Amino acid sequence: MSDREHRRQLSLNAFIYPAGHHEAAWRHPASAAERIYDASYYQEIARTAEAATLDAVFFADGPALQGDVAHNAVGRLEPITLLTAIAAATERIGLIATASTTYYEPYNLARLFGSLDHISGGRAGWNIVTTGNDAAAANFGLDAHPPHAERYARAREFVDAVIALWDSWEDDAVVLDREAGIYADASKIHEIGHAGEYVRVRGPFNQPRPPQGHPVLVQAGASNDGRAFAGRYAEAIFTAHQRLADAQAFYADIKARAASFGRRPEDVKILPGISPFIAGTETAARALEREFNELTVPAYGLLQLERITGASLNHLDLDAPVPPALFAGAGDVTDNGRSRLQVVAGIVERERPTVRGLLHRLAGARGHRVFAGTPEQVADTIEEWFRSNAADGFNVMPPYYPGGLTIFAEAVVPILRDRGLFRTEYTGHTLRDHFGLPRPTGRITASAVSA
Amino acid sequence: MSDREHRRQLSLNAFIYPAGHHEAAWRHPASAAERIYDASYYQEIARTAEAATLDAVFFADGPALQGDVAHNAVGRLEPITLLTAIAAATERIGLIATASTTYYEPYNLARLFGSLDHISGGRAGWNIVTTGNDAAAANFGLDAHPPHAERYARAREFVDAVIALWDSWEDDAVVLDREAGIYADASKIHEIGHAGEYVRVRGPFNQPRPPQGHPVLVQAGASNDGRAFAGRYAEAIFTAHQRLADAQAFYADIKARAASFGRRPEDVKILPGISPFIAGTETAARALEREFNELTVPAYGLLQLERITGASLNHLDLDAPVPPALFAGAGDVTDNGRSRLQVVAGIVERERPTVRGLLHRLAGARGHRVFAGTPEQVADTIEEWFRSNAADGFNVMPPYYPGGLTIFAEAVVPILRDRGLFRTEYTGHTLRDHFGLPRPTGRITASAVSA
Repeated sequence: MSDREHRRQLSLNAFIYPAGHHEAAWRHPASAAERIYDASYYQEIARTAEAATLDAVFFADGPALQGDVAHNAVGRLEPITLLTAIAAATERIGLIATASTTYYEPYNLARLFGSLDHISGGRAGWNIVTTGNDAAAANFGLDAHPPHAERYARAREFVDAVIALWDSWEDDAVVLDREAGIYADASKIHEIGHAGEYVRVRGPFNQPRPPQGHPVLVQAGASNDGRAFAGRYAEAIFTAHQRLADAQAFYADIKARAASFGRRPEDVKILPGISPFIAGTETAARALEREFNELTVPAYGLLQLERITGASLNHLDLDAPVPPALFAGAGDVTDNGRSRLQVVAGIVERERPTVRGLLHRLAGARGHRVFAGTPEQVADTIEEWFRSNAADGFNVMPPYYPGGLTIFAEAVVPILRDRGLFRTEYTGHTLRDHFGLPRPTGRITASAVSA
Repeated sequence: MSDREHRRQLSLNAFIYPAGHHEAAWRHPASAAERIYDASYYQEIARTAEAATLDAVFFADGPALQGDVAHNAVGRLEPITLLTAIAAATERIGLIATASTTYYEPYNLARLFGSLDHISGGRAGWNIVTTGNDAAAANFGLDAHPPHAERYARAREFVDAVIALWDSWEDDAVVLDREAGIYADASKIHEIGHAGEYVRVRGPFNQPRPPQGHPVLVQAGASNDGRAFAGRYAEAIFTAHQRLADAQAFYADIKARAASFGRRPEDVKILPGISPFIAGTETAARALEREFNELTVPAYGLLQLERITGASLNHLDLDAPVPPALFAGAGDVTDNGRSRLQVVAGIVERERPTVRGLLHRLAGARGHRVFAGTPEQVADTIEEWFRSNAADGFNVMPPYYPGGLTIFAEAVVPILRDRGLFRTEYTGHTLRDHFGLPRPTGRITASAVSA
C-alpha cells in the first residue's frame, strides 16, 4: 500500500429513509414506523451516525406524495427543516438535503441552505435534483413536468445564481465597528445581477457568506446531461450500481468530466448506494433479507415498477418470468434520463427473474445494490470497490431504521477503521473537512459591481 | 372584576430582532451583535422567553437585503430554519415565522410550516405577509413588486391552498396495520384540486395533517385589504399603534370584521407592538432610551424615513422642524397599504419634532410604540390597554437583546402574574393551547374528491 493510498479515506453517509430503505421495513417489528414524523427519532439516528464518525446524514426529497401510500410509509417531513432540528442535536456530522431546482426559487433555496450552514457551523450539503415527475408538476401549477433538457438548463442557471448569492458578501464584509458606527463594508457586498433565460436574481444575499463558502454541492443524475452537470458542479455524487465493472466505468467517466472542467478529480467524491443486510453469518443475513422480502405487498411493488418502466403491469403473472420486452426501449444509460430503468434492465438480462423475484430484488433499495452478509463481508465489498476505483465511499442505505444503521455502525465501521480505511475520530468540523474538500474562494471580488 | 375578566389572559410574544429592535442596538455594549448568525444565541433567547412562559417567539422576514447594511445589522437568518433549531432547544414556547405569499410557492411553504409543526409538536405559527417592496421583486425575476390588490388576491388563494394541503390527510388517515400491510387509508387522503387565478395545486400533501391541524395563522396588514384578510383568516394580529384610542378603534374594527365572517371575536388575538426601555426609575429608563438614541447614525435613519415617505430627504436640516408637507399625501390609514406612513404622520402632527427628534422617535421600533419606565409602569400600560379593549396581549419588542428581554421576563412578567393577568405555568403544549385557540377540524371530508 502506498502512502497516498494509505491517506485516502472512505467517505460514508447514512442515507436516512423514514422506516428504512426496504419497502416493507414499516411492517417489520425491527422498524419504528410509528416515529417517522417525530424529530427525536431522526436526532437519535443522526447521533448513532455521528458516534460512528460518518461523514453525513442524507435525505432524499420530492415535492409530491409519490407511490402507494396505502401500502408504504411514503410521506415525509421536509428535509431542510428536519436537518436543522438534527443540527441542534449533533456537533460534527454533515447534513445533506435534497432540493429541486425546478420547483424552488433560487433566492429562497439559497437562504434555506445558507441558514442551515450558519446554524450548523458549516455542515450543510445540497443534493441538487431537477425532479422529473408529473405529480410534482401538478403541485406547482404545471400540466406536465418540463422536459429533461429544459430542467437541466434551468438547473445550471439556478445553481450559478445560488452560488453567486452565497458569494455576494465577501468573507470579511462584516466589520462590526461599534465605535465608528460601521456595521459592514458595503463595498464588499455585491448585487449579482443574474439575468438568465430561466432565472433572474438581482441580489445581494441577505446574510453573510456561509461558513463553508458554499454548502457542499451533491448530485445524483446519471444521464448525459446529469453527468455533464456533475462534472462541472458536483463535489459528491450519489449513484446506483449493481456491479463493480459498471461502477468503475461511471467513476472513470465522472473523474474525466471533472478534469475537463479544470477540476481536480479528487474534489469529486463518487458514492454508490449500498443497502446491507448484516448478521453473524451469511446464512442469517440472507434469511433476514428473505424475511423482509416476504413482507412486501406485490401491488406496491408493481406500482413502483410501473413508474420505472412506464408500462401497465397488473396483468402479469407474479410467478412467470419477467417479459424481456418490457425493457426493450431502455436504450443507453447516458442517453436518457432513465438510469434506474437501465439498472433494472440489467438485472432482468443477467438474472432472468420471475416477476415476484424482480419485485423482491427491487424492494430492498429501489434499484440500489442490496448486499447480505457478515460484517466482514460488508467491509470486504466496501474495501474492494474503494480500492479498485469504483467508489470513494458509500451512501449507506440501511434496509430498516434504526437497527440497520446501528449494526453497521457497531460491527462494520470498526473493521473499516482497523483496516485504516476510515477515520477513528473527526479531524475537522465542517462537511468539507470530512470529505476533504477545499473551501471555495468567493467568485466576486471588490472590482465587481458594488451594491 | 368579573369572573370572565379574571379568566381572560394576556398573550405575550417575544419579537426577536437580531441585535434588538432599536436601530442602534448593535452599537451598544449590552447587545450581542457578534452572535446574530449563531443559532445558540437565539436558542438562549427563546429559553429566556420560555422560562417566563411567554406564548411565542416571533421573527419578521423579507427575501431581500433591506436598509443600510453599512450602518446596521440588517442581514438575517431564514426564520423557519432558525425556529426549527429553536424547537430542538425548547419544549413549550410557540414558534412564529413570517413568510411571503408573493415570493413562495404554496406547496413548498405548506411543507416548511407543516414540518415545523410536526417537529415542534404543534408549536408553529405563520405570519402571512404579501411583501411590498421592489428589492424583493428583483430577487424573483420581477421588475417591480405586484400591486397591492393583486398581492392580496394571490394571498387569499395561496392561504386557501395551503390550508387545503394541511387538511388533505384526515386526522386518522394513517392506520399503520403491519399485519394487514395497510399503512394508510387512502380514502382519507385527498387531492385538493385548487385551481385559482394565481395558484394551482393538485395535492395531496406529502405528510400527515399537522399536530395543530393548521399552524396558527398570524397577520399584520392594516390597510382595508389587510384588515379584510385578517378578519377572515388571522388568529393573531400584530399591529403598530402609538395611542390607546387608535388601538381601540383598530381592535373594534377587526373584531367586527371577524364576526362578519361568522367567527368568534375571541378567536382573533390583537397584539400591538411595545418596545420597553426598563429601569429601576423612570428617569433611568429615559436615560437608557437617550443613550441608545445618541448612538443612532442619522444617515441610516434618513434612509429608513425615505423608505416610509417615498421622498428624498438628505437635504433636510437635522435640527429644523419636520416639514409637514412630507406627510400631506398620507391619506386615510385604511385606504392604502402605507399604515406605517400614517403612524409617522400622526407623530409629526402631534409632537412637531425636529428631523433629528423624529429619527430618534422612529429609531426605537420602526414606528411601533416605545415606552420608557419602571417595571410597574410597563405592567400598568400593558394592563390598561388589555382592560380597555385595545389589546389581547402584546408583541414585546426589546430594544436590545438579550438583556432587554431578560429584564422584561424577570421584572415585568412577575407583576403581570401577581395581578392575575398572565399564566404562572404553561397549561398546554401547543401554540393554540397558549393562545386559547381551537384546533380546526379538517375542511375536507370523506365525501370529497378522493386521491
